[in-house]
Amino acid sequence: MAVSQETKRDYSRRGYGIRLGWGKRPALVVIDFQRCLTDESYQYGHNYDDEIAATAELLSEARRARIPIAHTVIGYTPGTLDAGIMLIKIPGMKDFIFGSEATEFDARVAPTAGELIIEKTTQSAFFGTPFNTYLTMRSVDTLIVAGCTASGCVRATVTDASAYGYRPMVVAEAVGDIADEPRDGSFFDMESKVADVVTLAETLDELRSVAALGRADEAIAARG
Amino acid sequence: MAVSQETKRDYSRRGYGIRLGWGKRPALVVIDFQRCLTDESYQYGHNYDDEIAATAELLSEARRARIPIAHTVIGYTPGTLDAGIMLIKIPGMKDFIFGSEATEFDARVAPTAGELIIEKTTQSAFFGTPFNTYLTMRSVDTLIVAGCTASGCVRATVTDASAYGYRPMVVAEAVGDIADEPRDGSFFDMESKVADVVTLAETLDELRSVAALGRADEAIAARG
Amino acid sequence: MAVSQETKRDYSRRGYGIRLGWGKRPALVVIDFQRCLTDESYQYGHNYDDEIAATAELLSEARRARIPIAHTVIGYTPGTLDAGIMLIKIPGMKDFIFGSEATEFDARVAPTAGELIIEKTTQSAFFGTPFNTYLTMRSVDTLIVAGCTASGCVRATVTDASAYGYRPMVVAEAVGDIADEPRDGSFFDMESKVADVVTLAETLDELRSVAALGRADEAIAARG
Amino acid sequence: MAVSQETKRDYSRRGYGIRLGWGKRPALVVIDFQRCLTDESYQYGHNYDDEIAATAELLSEARRARIPIAHTVIGYTPGTLDAGIMLIKIPGMKDFIFGSEATEFDARVAPTAGELIIEKTTQSAFFGTPFNTYLTMRSVDTLIVAGCTASGCVRATVTDASAYGYRPMVVAEAVGDIADEPRDGSFFDMESKVADVVTLAETLDELRSVAALGRADEAIAARG
Repeated sequence: MAVSQETKRDYSRRGYGIRLGWGKRPALVVIDFQRCLTDESYQYGHNYDDEIAATAELLSEARRARIPIAHTVIGYTPGTLDAGIMLIKIPGMKDFIFGSEATEFDARVAPTAGELIIEKTTQSAFFGTPFNTYLTMRSVDTLIVAGCTASGCVRATVTDASAYGYRPMVVAEAVGDIADEPRDGSFFDMESKVADVVTLAETLDELRSVAALGRADEAIAARG
Repeated sequence: MAVSQETKRDYSRRGYGIRLGWGKRPALVVIDFQRCLTDESYQYGHNYDDEIAATAELLSEARRARIPIAHTVIGYTPGTLDAGIMLIKIPGMKDFIFGSEATEFDARVAPTAGELIIEKTTQSAFFGTPFNTYLTMRSVDTLIVAGCTASGCVRATVTDASAYGYRPMVVAEAVGDIADEPRDGSFFDMESKVADVVTLAETLDELRSVAALGRADEAIAARG
Repeated sequence: MAVSQETKRDYSRRGYGIRLGWGKRPALVVIDFQRCLTDESYQYGHNYDDEIAATAELLSEARRARIPIAHTVIGYTPGTLDAGIMLIKIPGMKDFIFGSEATEFDARVAPTAGELIIEKTTQSAFFGTPFNTYLTMRSVDTLIVAGCTASGCVRATVTDASAYGYRPMVVAEAVGDIADEPRDGSFFDMESKVADVVTLAETLDELRSVAALGRADEAIAARG
Repeated sequence: MAVSQETKRDYSRRGYGIRLGWGKRPALVVIDFQRCLTDESYQYGHNYDDEIAATAELLSEARRARIPIAHTVIGYTPGTLDAGIMLIKIPGMKDFIFGSEATEFDARVAPTAGELIIEKTTQSAFFGTPFNTYLTMRSVDTLIVAGCTASGCVRATVTDASAYGYRPMVVAEAVGDIADEPRDGSFFDMESKVADVVTLAETLDELRSVAALGRADEAIAARG
């Protein structure tokens, strides 16, 4: 167990982990579901079949609700001149070159037209990318997060999202890691201080209600 | 145990956690050793006596080496208009008001003249502050990190430091948390992907060698 | 004349300067109307009486409309350790110390309770401050800008606002500079590429309509 | 004349425009010398033959000195989902698609292997890109700037550079604009507050001295 009951009780007693709740204008971001991470034949690959199935459900409902959708991929341009410190810690990432097979999206959750693709060089989807501008241009207030890994790029993105002022909603079934302890530890830390960790079912319900509201708005607009 | 031996072996086998090593121009940052976190009578307070003693040693040697030193404090201006999402998750932070007793530095590791004080409103020392500019103006390439909490503000600062291009050196004895599992889990995650977790002894040695080098440079400069 | 008719025609012919128009949720920011800039007895002081009178009208209407309001002040903490390059170019700014008389707000347009105060160390209100988070937390999409100087801090703030995804509305009567050419040149550049330069009258009308809409919303909410 | 002698005297009397001088580790950035801006057959194209010739000299000497070199290009990914406000002001930019002919580098100053290419979506080379990380990873302290336009992307990049803590050196002969007044106005504003405007000759001399120093360092290192 990544976190003991005693620690959980201590956090609760101190007043950590109050629920954020949903805002009004959510967006969905899928973090790094790319070949070299989701295909076990790669050095850093891992089996995320369950998380990808959950993410596919999220994508389907999010498309129906017409909310902004973004997909990130981690890597470097050829030559890796855009790399930061991470490439020193994990030298094998030199093969994560944008445009190569390693950085292709997993076909089960690939972007479709009208969805933002973010090429990033470090963990957070916000760092050195136009992601925040994309969200601001669309008045997003809530960020639904799926992808991998919980303790790496998901967590860094969620930490930044909360700092930038978006409510991060981490969908438990749709976020994976290569081992249980880092995932469970990060779920606990995020839930305690910067995000809500929510179920897939709750998120799908929320997306359906956003879709219904959107259709109502459109009907009112059409009636003039 | 926050992370099993099996998980550690798996990470190692994949090639995570290569050592960064020291750069040439380190700076030291002390994260959030402020009254409301280091004094157990506060809601979020915890006993960090050991970590503070280690940090005092770091400060002493860093001052001798004349490297840039910064201290962060987390909180808000009166009215908390500058708050992000974190204040919703942890409403008790409404009392962390800059200028109040809650945000006073712990006297054992308080800043002295010539050291930067960073008032920050979220976890990372880099977010919404002039900290990165301070480091760039001084050509820093390595960031020694002490303070609390390992799984919160230290980790967010370290993640950002690696993204910005600084080698983060997390001093194990000088970084604490309110519970062991979040600390150990974050040490493992940081060491695997974005930082070196180093000992106090190694860091003090490095600072002594920087000091010696600085004195040699000054002697050469004086000889003209 | 800062920009010739020929140049204006060339820009127009090429298709620069299309009007942005107003978004739905404006905020107002007043840039650097502080003693050392608005009081002519200071080295960098200048008479901005007209611009301050226009800004006072903006503030009055913005308060009635209950939109987010922010005020910036440029300077440094004692010791100026947080300074960037600007302090080398303009060494006299060493006296712009936060908390001193030099950085007091001009009493005619001083903040009232519930308005954000942003202490910044360089030109843009966004750089190294929590300003963007403040706007995102309030779902702002349009930024009304008053203050000084047009070619310095106003322009840098407006440039950043457009990059971050906010519609910048520069209120011509409320934005000043120490000389006409820099002001007129920056108005032309901003209007061509990143902002609308609008009249005080149009902005006051817009704020009145936001206020009316807000009251209507409240009435609907009250009726349940 | 973009700025009158009287205004220049007033600025000088007040103490604006003190010279920064060169740091120790310069980098060179070439801003937006791309087909759709340097080829007059495009809507926003202009003849920059003189500035491109000067930039080619800079590139040649910078390569000899082995300093970091970066090239920016402005545009969007297909679909322009990454666009900010600028695309509303200048709708014709919808054709600036990365990978299309419009965003190809002008062949006279095209990047060679080992030089960073920055795809940016707004004016500043720093906004939403890994550029700052690239500079920090190489301990750069001085940023030599060439390219276009003086009043647009060059100025925004220079403003950010000074905020981030780099000494911006604007090479007069190598920076152009589509008209004289915006260029001259921005040169005056930058020189007054955030940058040195330097001659090509001075910059080439500085690069030669950096090259000589580098060769001396290598000789010392080789002697062991």
